[in-house]
Amino acid sequence: LTTIALDGMGGDHGPSVVVPAALATLSDEPAARFILVGRREQLVEELRRCRGHESERLRVHHAPEIVAMDESPAQALRTKKASSMRVAIELVKQGEAHAAVSAGNTGALMATARFVLKTLPGIDRPAIIRNLPSVRGHAHVLDLGANVDCTAEQLVQFAIMGSILVSAIEGKERPRIGLLNVGQENIKGNEIVKQAAELLRASHVNYVGYVEGNDIYTGDVDVVVCDGFVGNIALKASEGLAQMIWQFMRQEFSRHWSRRLAALVAAPALRALGRRVDPRLYNGATLIGLNGTVVKSHGGADVVAFQQAIREALSEANHNVPERIGRELGLMLGAGQVA
Amino acid sequence: LTTIALDGMGGDHGPSVVVPAALATLSDEPAARFILVGRREQLVEELRRCRGHESERLRVHHAPEIVAMDESPAQALRTKKASSMRVAIELVKQGEAHAAVSAGNTGALMATARFVLKTLPGIDRPAIIRNLPSVRGHAHVLDLGANVDCTAEQLVQFAIMGSILVSAIEGKERPRIGLLNVGQENIKGNEIVKQAAELLRASHVNYVGYVEGNDIYTGDVDVVVCDGFVGNIALKASEGLAQMIWQFMRQEFSRHWSRRLAALVAAPALRALGRRVDPRLYNGATLIGLNGTVVKSHGGADVVAFQQAIREALSEANHNVPERIGRELGLMLGAGQVA
Repeated sequence: LTTIALDGMGGDHGPSVVVPAALATLSDEPAARFILVGRREQLVEELRRCRGHESERLRVHHAPEIVAMDESPAQALRTKKASSMRVAIELVKQGEAHAAVSAGNTGALMATARFVLKTLPGIDRPAIIRNLPSVRGHAHVLDLGANVDCTAEQLVQFAIMGSILVSAIEGKERPRIGLLNVGQENIKGNEIVKQAAELLRASHVNYVGYVEGNDIYTGDVDVVVCDGFVGNIALKASEGLAQMIWQFMRQEFSRHWSRRLAALVAAPALRALGRRVDPRLYNGATLIGLNGTVVKSHGGADVVAFQQAIREALSEANHNVPERIGRELGLMLGAGQVA
Repeated sequence: LTTIALDGMGGDHGPSVVVPAALATLSDEPAARFILVGRREQLVEELRRCRGHESERLRVHHAPEIVAMDESPAQALRTKKASSMRVAIELVKQGEAHAAVSAGNTGALMATARFVLKTLPGIDRPAIIRNLPSVRGHAHVLDLGANVDCTAEQLVQFAIMGSILVSAIEGKERPRIGLLNVGQENIKGNEIVKQAAELLRASHVNYVGYVEGNDIYTGDVDVVVCDGFVGNIALKASEGLAQMIWQFMRQEFSRHWSRRLAALVAAPALRALGRRVDPRLYNGATLIGLNGTVVKSHGGADVVAFQQAIREALSEANHNVPERIGRELGLMLGAGQVA
């Protein structure tokens, strides 16, 4: 059985999303076990509301405090030692859970995870990695916002971690790694990216060269490496554009009666399209580079989205992603291939 | 009459796009006059093919050389002194044209424009600015790739130029300026962005604070300021996502006969949607910060798209954008508000 600790109080919706998502996943994933961390009373009440109950595969673990969505990471770390977020991560540290999932505040989650679990040897700072849909399959992108200023060495660490994660959970032997840049010609790009490209060419990862922003969605590479500033903005720009297109589509399909009729006829195709780009089915970003698996769900996630984050945590825990990264970095440190 | 010099040989399609676009715009814009720059024989031949002819409002200006799409900017500048691109820009310098439009190679166009026209006093380096659709209207974004590493002062210059451009061509008195960052809290962001925010708060532009990637498309600000590395990647990521969505939509609407039927019924709504996000209707990026107006069309632009780039050049020339920027920067230099 794989045990996942769930921060029951995190996110915009707290237990009203986390509890039903856990219950739904229990039946889908017979080898999974969950620890719901948070205020016992609220969690039990929500379980009752959802017609669920505590069991060997679904325990409630009391944690009285809650990290607010706008709380500063430093403050959360200093004053919320009994928060649901902190306790969920400590269960991973203590070996009682194989991974933790939280929809709580990203900064606090990252600070707490780093403090409790520590980064792997050879990794300066953890990164945030996520799976995004592409024309042919999907691509993992990192860093998505943990590190706003990165050195070339950090970008190389990201490439190594992304490569190991994709190879572990997708069984790809040599995932193709691209470095995000403004152009594919070698002369372009900023200095740090150029240095990182040189280091990557000398490394053992399957580095295929520079990629541009649109290549996140072409499926030509398995992993896109960038600093957290660029990655976060590229991701949010994409989200903003997608929302705009959906909004325009809704407007165009409701302009007058003939358009509303067309919407009915087109509904199956539009629903199928929606499923292929539904951000809920790509929910769940991993804090990678730690001694343990921590998955961040979107704060506004609904039950469907939160379930996806749980599945992501299960998959990474089942494939021992942190151990694999640690082992490979250990070998590289031994061989002097990373600093 | 406003005179626009058109690089007749630039882009993937050269005269076969530029000439029909010029002819179409001639009838739409009675106050416009064009100089087609490039190989006379080819341009005249294309004019004949399009059933057009030289006139007082449509001259051909011979320039024997062509800058290749993959030619290095330094090489183009050194060896192609009689290129269609160079000669078109020189017509602006000499006062024979009010603006130039080229679909040629961006690097060479920027290098040539800087060399021939020079940057305005108070501007370190020109930027690339473009109009993008948003939920409510549109937003101008700069820099989109001319400057991969920017200082805080350069970001402030971008903000000033963007503000003046929007105020000139759209008549908005105090355009809202946002600084692209990874979060709206003041604690986030990299050092250069934080410094730029401080300078912008002290400046006279209508700085509304940090914006995130998705805000490019929400319409909450009129101008989004960022360095060229981030701007280029955000723009290309958006383009990649939009292409993916269209491709998925085409697939879903052609999966079997009932879907193809639905596509017919939905065609008016889908066409209306397409018009609202058609990148051709947003073609034309301005090299801003120069003593003169130079508009870069997408290299793969078709006639519709190239016409849009011409309209952009006409609008900026009619509103004296470079002169206004120069005047305002002159006042600010005098008052010690810019370095």
